[in-house]
Amino acid sequence: MINKPVTIYDIAAKLDLAPSTISRGLKRHSSVSLPTQQRIIQMAEKMGYRANAFAINLRNNKTSTIGIIVPKLNSYFMSQVIAGIEKVINSAGYNLLISQSLEDVGKEIINVQTMFDNRVAGLLVSLAENTSDIAHFLNLQKRGIPVLFFDRTPAGSDLPALTINNEAAGYKVTRHLIEQGATKIVHITGNQLSNVYKERLSGYKRALLEFKIPFEESCVLINDLSEEAGIKAANTIIKLKADGVFVANDHCAASCMHELKHHGKKVPEDIVIAGFNNDMISRIIDPSLTTVDYPGLKMGEIAAKNLLAHIEEKIDINLTANIILKTPLLIRQSSLRNP
Amino acid sequence: MINKPVTIYDIAAKLDLAPSTISRGLKRHSSVSLPTQQRIIQMAEKMGYRANAFAINLRNNKTSTIGIIVPKLNSYFMSQVIAGIEKVINSAGYNLLISQSLEDVGKEIINVQTMFDNRVAGLLVSLAENTSDIAHFLNLQKRGIPVLFFDRTPAGSDLPALTINNEAAGYKVTRHLIEQGATKIVHITGNQLSNVYKERLSGYKRALLEFKIPFEESCVLINDLSEEAGIKAANTIIKLKADGVFVANDHCAASCMHELKHHGKKVPEDIVIAGFNNDMISRIIDPSLTTVDYPGLKMGEIAAKNLLAHIEEKIDINLTANIILKTPLLIRQSSLRNP
Repeated sequence: MINKPVTIYDIAAKLDLAPSTISRGLKRHSSVSLPTQQRIIQMAEKMGYRANAFAINLRNNKTSTIGIIVPKLNSYFMSQVIAGIEKVINSAGYNLLISQSLEDVGKEIINVQTMFDNRVAGLLVSLAENTSDIAHFLNLQKRGIPVLFFDRTPAGSDLPALTINNEAAGYKVTRHLIEQGATKIVHITGNQLSNVYKERLSGYKRALLEFKIPFEESCVLINDLSEEAGIKAANTIIKLKADGVFVANDHCAASCMHELKHHGKKVPEDIVIAGFNNDMISRIIDPSLTTVDYPGLKMGEIAAKNLLAHIEEKIDINLTANIILKTPLLIRQSSLRNP
Repeated sequence: MINKPVTIYDIAAKLDLAPSTISRGLKRHSSVSLPTQQRIIQMAEKMGYRANAFAINLRNNKTSTIGIIVPKLNSYFMSQVIAGIEKVINSAGYNLLISQSLEDVGKEIINVQTMFDNRVAGLLVSLAENTSDIAHFLNLQKRGIPVLFFDRTPAGSDLPALTINNEAAGYKVTRHLIEQGATKIVHITGNQLSNVYKERLSGYKRALLEFKIPFEESCVLINDLSEEAGIKAANTIIKLKADGVFVANDHCAASCMHELKHHGKKVPEDIVIAGFNNDMISRIIDPSLTTVDYPGLKMGEIAAKNLLAHIEEKIDINLTANIILKTPLLIRQSSLRNP
């Protein structure tokens, strides 16, 4: 006896649903609810149904997959962004495919191609730090696949992007450290090709200027903002006799503070310190770390909602261009000399 | 004038390479070096070349993409695993597509289908906590796509898997806490459907038994091992008058210790504490946290190497079945009463 291939009609009969529902459910079309999609797919799996998904995609020229390309997945912030995106797109019937550029534009180009080959319905991107030319994204846009940038966005372009005001945030942190009595503030930051770090540095400089503190090139430490970089920076800070530190992420700030304490420095008495992101570590360490609340979950949700609304032709993200999120300063023990 | 479509011959002429190299490069075949792949893809992008990737995949029945499905991306451990995988597969000319099951078997099934639709060459999987039936992976295997499980692996199956000895690790931690004088040890852990948490609990029980400490059901707190869960658990620990805590991850251990200190408990004098994973946070908090070194980067590298070797028909992972990594106990201040 030869087993005849299972058809969508067999699945429809089994689940007591219309064959058209089965067809749309298998394609994970958003008109079928997620629980029903899952029932259909589970039954299809169980019955050994094999759709020629490639042929379907070729015919329909669409899928229900959203792609995301990020520099690296190794941060609390990025995992929060992705959680926010999943929350929105899953309930709309889309699935998320994630890839990392590992801060390399060459890999980013390959990732774009992979996402394109997989016919994503739209793409969310935070740029690699050495991406200056963004032709690979423009090509994707030309082919009708919408691209929305977030966090690390192309400098000097009017492509749709979701960011925070990094300059204003950098200014607020630095101003706060000065108001707490710091007179020599070291700024630890990342690659200056990235808009994020460049603008935070601008904000730092503006605050110094406002309070007539001379800017010193030697007080700006550019590294990869890793745990190790924070430890190394602590030694430089001691040599420079700085009394304030503003670090562009919390992880590096935490390891730097740990090392400073290890060398007998008291925080905030001898040195005031602030980080950036409001990662969990900022709340747990002792003293707790002053930081900027960068709401990853919210950023992910807003990015996903805008991209989906564009795909469903409810808005045109190319018209709204820039969306800017608020980022409050969270003042904690590491910088609070005068409560 | 009508623009003729760009062909691989045009790209070959421009780069002075053989058309077959262009063809393989565009498909990211591992016989073409990664830098050359990138040159080819960049030039193809620049010239506006559009391969019918779906047709190519349909014809060749292969891609150079590896898929990975993880429960959640929100841990240092998982980001390390993924970094290890990328390192190995990128240098072999493969690209990585990542998706999250968000601890839900229904989404995991959809992810498997998405990965299959995208013709991944192989799949790496750490299971959702409520996955009991693994038929969706068996179907994939039957269709010739190798699946290698890591960390969270199917219980009671002989499918290829890469794990640590969770039972032995749980035993080692508990034994150490007892040797440091703890007589009533709370164990905070995750969903017991997961092999990982179930086995750590078994190890905890074995150590208690060996030292003739009665096992109390009330001393086992099962939650989602989040920051919030750690805070909540601290209050229970105080009520139970426990003098030892073994937490199945570092993040939850860190927030629990923070909360215990907040309530005036001294660590390690009043309570000895140990975590699991050797996350960065375990080294930064005060006192530093005793933990189990779970080498994510190494696990990722080994998983990727084995999967690739299987794809390239150098080994058969179905024969080796289980690979077990070593996990040393890292004794730090949070548990060290008798240095």
